[in-house]
Amino acid sequence: MSERILDFLRQRRSDGPCVVVDLDIVRDNYLTFSHALPDTRVFYAVKANPAPEIIQLLADLGSCFDCASLAEIEMVLATGAGPERISFGNTIKKERDIARAHALGVSLFAVDCEAEVDKIIRAAPGARVFCRILCDGVGADWPLSRKFGCAPDMAPRVLEHAHRGGLVAHGVSFHVGSQQANVEAWDGALSTAAWIFREMAERGINLAMVNLGGGFPARYLKDMPGVPHYGEAILRALGTHFGNQIPETIIEPGRGMVGDAGIIEAEVVLISRKSDHEDELRWVYLDIGKFNGLAETMDEAIRYPIRTEKDDDRRSPCILAGPTCDSVDVLYEKTPYELPVSLSIGDKVLIGACGAYTTTYSSVAFNGFEPLRSYVI
Amino acid sequence: MSERILDFLRQRRSDGPCVVVDLDIVRDNYLTFSHALPDTRVFYAVKANPAPEIIQLLADLGSCFDCASLAEIEMVLATGAGPERISFGNTIKKERDIARAHALGVSLFAVDCEAEVDKIIRAAPGARVFCRILCDGVGADWPLSRKFGCAPDMAPRVLEHAHRGGLVAHGVSFHVGSQQANVEAWDGALSTAAWIFREMAERGINLAMVNLGGGFPARYLKDMPGVPHYGEAILRALGTHFGNQIPETIIEPGRGMVGDAGIIEAEVVLISRKSDHEDELRWVYLDIGKFNGLAETMDEAIRYPIRTEKDDDRRSPCILAGPTCDSVDVLYEKTPYELPVSLSIGDKVLIGACGAYTTTYSSVAFNGFEPLRSYVI
Repeated sequence: MSERILDFLRQRRSDGPCVVVDLDIVRDNYLTFSHALPDTRVFYAVKANPAPEIIQLLADLGSCFDCASLAEIEMVLATGAGPERISFGNTIKKERDIARAHALGVSLFAVDCEAEVDKIIRAAPGARVFCRILCDGVGADWPLSRKFGCAPDMAPRVLEHAHRGGLVAHGVSFHVGSQQANVEAWDGALSTAAWIFREMAERGINLAMVNLGGGFPARYLKDMPGVPHYGEAILRALGTHFGNQIPETIIEPGRGMVGDAGIIEAEVVLISRKSDHEDELRWVYLDIGKFNGLAETMDEAIRYPIRTEKDDDRRSPCILAGPTCDSVDVLYEKTPYELPVSLSIGDKVLIGACGAYTTTYSSVAFNGFEPLRSYVI
Repeated sequence: MSERILDFLRQRRSDGPCVVVDLDIVRDNYLTFSHALPDTRVFYAVKANPAPEIIQLLADLGSCFDCASLAEIEMVLATGAGPERISFGNTIKKERDIARAHALGVSLFAVDCEAEVDKIIRAAPGARVFCRILCDGVGADWPLSRKFGCAPDMAPRVLEHAHRGGLVAHGVSFHVGSQQANVEAWDGALSTAAWIFREMAERGINLAMVNLGGGFPARYLKDMPGVPHYGEAILRALGTHFGNQIPETIIEPGRGMVGDAGIIEAEVVLISRKSDHEDELRWVYLDIGKFNGLAETMDEAIRYPIRTEKDDDRRSPCILAGPTCDSVDVLYEKTPYELPVSLSIGDKVLIGACGAYTTTYSSVAFNGFEPLRSYVI
């Protein structure tokens, strides 16, 4: 865990949980991505953590940005980065938001159906669009539904529709699934992307770009391959499927960029047992839960590393839960969490790899608890 | 649907989703609870919707309040209601929050283990405590875990511990499960509560109160019994298990008080199909989803009634999803939702029974989307 963050927390006097993000780690991660895929432009997925300091740092390093909404576009422009560095990557956009983005100079948009293309033809004439295709997401820890993307064999029609409407049919995108453990996961999608490139070329339309999406993991409890392994596998797959006509590529890391840069400090509020039965596990309640920062424990998908001051002691399994009066605010129960038997009420715990998808996922004020406080150092 | 709300929405000029709550309906609901259980005090579960206008109305009507946190206690006191009308009903409290509540005059606290009793002995000497017991929750639409409450045979020990520590062992509480469809659900828990009363009396400690909890349903799509039916069943169960020594009782309606008082207005952002297969359902994307108001669609638990301006047209099933770039932001997919075939991008939809668990559950800014706007009329 980052010594800078631990130092910061030692100085802090406070009354509730918080997350602290170390910009040095974000910088290292950016450079790691740049080196692993030197010809690929990095579009940071702002939704992972839109703290202004993080966006500013990445803008200064030369990063581009994948934005999910107009508000995120405005945050990026506020750093001084130009609109040519922005992709409006949400396939579900209001036409008036497309028009506003276009007025701000944004000219790259995601689509996955003709109705979305029609909005862009009207609201952002001449813009570049890329079509997102469905991808199976096998190997990913965070579920990927069919919400985004169209069947690959529909993509040429969508892109041709854009072309005929005066847009630039720019390329193809896909997402292999968040927290993707399999470095080969890009191979199948790239094979499909290459087929779409050929299909479009036969129609006289030359695509230029493949958006490789995100999916690069943060390090939670489970060990994961490093970014260089992903880079090698992706370069190999690009060569296999595109031969010597490698297209322009972009990646959209979010979790992989900021996930391991943040630590949450929380407090044990209560430890109890529900009955006197011998096999009854302890319940450990923290002052942070699903509704003020740890939403990604939903279905126990993401398993965070937790450190206490008593980690040298013997451990035993416990059920870990949040502080709200909501029954679903339980973090780990199906797979109990091993914590020191000597853990006590009032003890601090450090939850690692909390830099992504914690602050903005917080509820406004569920049960009267304030959203997760955030510090960027 | 409330004509007052529909009138309000017709006047509104706006750019995003909102919820509107009709105070007349909240007032009616309060009076319905008061009449159904005339000897039972109503403690509104503030977490369901803490809008100041709602708390003020209920305070003026004479309601008491079930608070989950210090912030909720402060909101209630701000209406002018005294601390004797407040129950600090969360079984998971920081000792410093108990001390602050005690300093504000609050003297009724929930517990479910000896460690929590110890905090109250130290931080709120002399206070009244009630012990929450586990209850199976069969028949409820929103899952109840084992998070709150102890096994019933542990409760006498917890209450005796409070008594010996100088607290008033005041009673027993349970929760039959949120959105409880079975009016008889209280019977089993009341039988257990009566056993705890007898057990304590044998120890020379006379309990006074049974907290019947919440669980009273709002009317979503599924038809539900009316509050009077719950009242009759509860009175019958009290008679069965307590004979002519009926204890003081309280109820904690939240969803049942405000659920059907609110309507969300949202907009269709996109309608698309994922492929050309004939059996492929439409995807309908709204500008509201799991992260800005409809969190209770988690696992498709709560199924909201939806009205459009085209409801006279033929309907067909669709998958309904929210606007964020998160795959889990899908509202109804396992059981698709029937909507008019003529529904178009830009159409408004009205989502009924959205008065509870919508505003505060909203995320702060996930994907840059603002939290659900709320109007109380």
